[in-house]
Amino acid sequence: MLINRQLRLKKRPEGLVQREDFDLVESSVPALSDGQALIQVLYLSMDPTNRVWMTDKPQYMPPVAIGETMRGLGLGRVVASRSKKYAEGDLVQGLVGWQNYVIASDEGTPFTRLPAQSGIPLPTLLGACGFSGMTAYYGLTDIAPVQPGETLVVSAAAGSVGSVAGQIGKIRGARVVGIAGGPEKCRYLIDELGFDAAVDYKADDWKNELAKATPDGVHVNFENVGGPVMRAVLQRMVLGGRVALCGLIAGYNSAEKPADDYSIIIVKRLIVRGFLAFDYAEPERAARDLANWVREGRIKAEETVEDGLENAPVVLNRLFDGSHRGKLLLRVGVEEG
Amino acid sequence: MLINRQLRLKKRPEGLVQREDFDLVESSVPALSDGQALIQVLYLSMDPTNRVWMTDKPQYMPPVAIGETMRGLGLGRVVASRSKKYAEGDLVQGLVGWQNYVIASDEGTPFTRLPAQSGIPLPTLLGACGFSGMTAYYGLTDIAPVQPGETLVVSAAAGSVGSVAGQIGKIRGARVVGIAGGPEKCRYLIDELGFDAAVDYKADDWKNELAKATPDGVHVNFENVGGPVMRAVLQRMVLGGRVALCGLIAGYNSAEKPADDYSIIIVKRLIVRGFLAFDYAEPERAARDLANWVREGRIKAEETVEDGLENAPVVLNRLFDGSHRGKLLLRVGVEEG
Repeated sequence: MLINRQLRLKKRPEGLVQREDFDLVESSVPALSDGQALIQVLYLSMDPTNRVWMTDKPQYMPPVAIGETMRGLGLGRVVASRSKKYAEGDLVQGLVGWQNYVIASDEGTPFTRLPAQSGIPLPTLLGACGFSGMTAYYGLTDIAPVQPGETLVVSAAAGSVGSVAGQIGKIRGARVVGIAGGPEKCRYLIDELGFDAAVDYKADDWKNELAKATPDGVHVNFENVGGPVMRAVLQRMVLGGRVALCGLIAGYNSAEKPADDYSIIIVKRLIVRGFLAFDYAEPERAARDLANWVREGRIKAEETVEDGLENAPVVLNRLFDGSHRGKLLLRVGVEEG
Repeated sequence: MLINRQLRLKKRPEGLVQREDFDLVESSVPALSDGQALIQVLYLSMDPTNRVWMTDKPQYMPPVAIGETMRGLGLGRVVASRSKKYAEGDLVQGLVGWQNYVIASDEGTPFTRLPAQSGIPLPTLLGACGFSGMTAYYGLTDIAPVQPGETLVVSAAAGSVGSVAGQIGKIRGARVVGIAGGPEKCRYLIDELGFDAAVDYKADDWKNELAKATPDGVHVNFENVGGPVMRAVLQRMVLGGRVALCGLIAGYNSAEKPADDYSIIIVKRLIVRGFLAFDYAEPERAARDLANWVREGRIKAEETVEDGLENAPVVLNRLFDGSHRGKLLLRVGVEEG
């Protein structure tokens, strides 16, 4: 009999997430009914949105309820099936939750079946070729399409979404400036990922550096951070500049009220547009383009992989302390074979 | 010899504007050179943007310098001309400044010549048919075009821009909900201007009233106010709703930092777009449509007119205490004849 382990939300975290905010609950995996498939979770995607889901702030999905298994994106393998949609051996991506096994049902929330033998490692399928990469893709092709010769500024540029966004900006012919924390990440953006410039927001003179890196102003801002970083970028926008508003990670651990300023939107006549990759119903083109770019070496994918379901709450905090690079993943299951 | 009187900015106001923040300076009007015309200012437009121009906050034009004649929109008559562009008797609109006379030069900042004998009273030419009306027009035809059957919410709905915006919303076939202060203004919106509903933001239960007035959510927000009013409207937006961000008057008298929240833009996948009527280089179509609508009675124009250049600083405050309706104007010159 298979044993499932689940991290269930015990109380809403204050500030950084604590292991004690969750209960680790073991139970046996029930037998499948017709129309169901059993998915073994292999990797969990550690995303800033997880932190938002733990709060009861207004958000784009209902908050995770107290006592509920934590919601989370991940990648898994179908290990048993009585389903018409999922066959044993299928690789799937979707809201698997913070647990070792999840049952998919043909009528329930769908999981995306991933192509077999893509030649792309599983962590990359969940990172640069998964929702993180797709988020970058939609932001720069649909929400705020960046044009050749324009200047694109990406915040959290060494992260899972930002690193792909910057590289897509280069593919589209833009001048790309990344904002990241620390000289090592900045070197990485330029030397490894091909950014034109990088600004270390932890340096004292970072606003001057941002100005120097954007002599023609900023045409497109792919924004992941919010707060002081975003304020500084908006001051550099050209009239009529476009903002693809993807995330506001600076505020996700804070109980303080936001202190954003809408007036710059008028002053600069900006178009600020919020979006979610979840909204795109047919991700096939994005997935195909991203996979091709990865295979061609035009997008370099990097993952930081940690181990162990029970560590999820603590590993998630690495998103907020800047101690990881690329996609942050948690390996929660190992395949036999 | 003609005497000009000018209100020159003496110090930057704190909170409401004081008469003492300005010097009233008299000087003789100099003789015209070739390429110049003398404009007698008849009406000054009292606009929230005047208050912003008095500050040194980042803004869309340079702040008015200490010692400089206060910048302001207005309407005047060419009373003498050695210009190729402006003939004696022309009615003009533009940045005349807080003074009795201004000299236009053929090479300088242009004034817009208004059609003679339009059949529209001068105050309305400066209000519903001037920049106020054009601001409403561009917001709902270009920035966030509202469609038949959609719900439009307009804040500061009894003001110069809002009152026209709501009426344009009706012309375009939308359900129009206005937000204004006090039951009298709300009745005016419904009974006189034909709004579908009006919400008194000074009433205790105004957020519930807003919800009841927008059962299908809000598709377009024409926003003039910002602050708590805007926050409440954004909570009612449909996914993918559009915001024409015209003004943020709630913050114009405040030295406090804004406490806006960008996260709702992601949660609701909004498109928020800032704009200025000044940006539209060819206002002829807007002016013609507005004038036709006024003549046809489809837009009802209302003005609150005060007298006396020296009163400009104090009259401007009426924009912020809600004690006026429609366009707030100051008559500073009377035509002979």
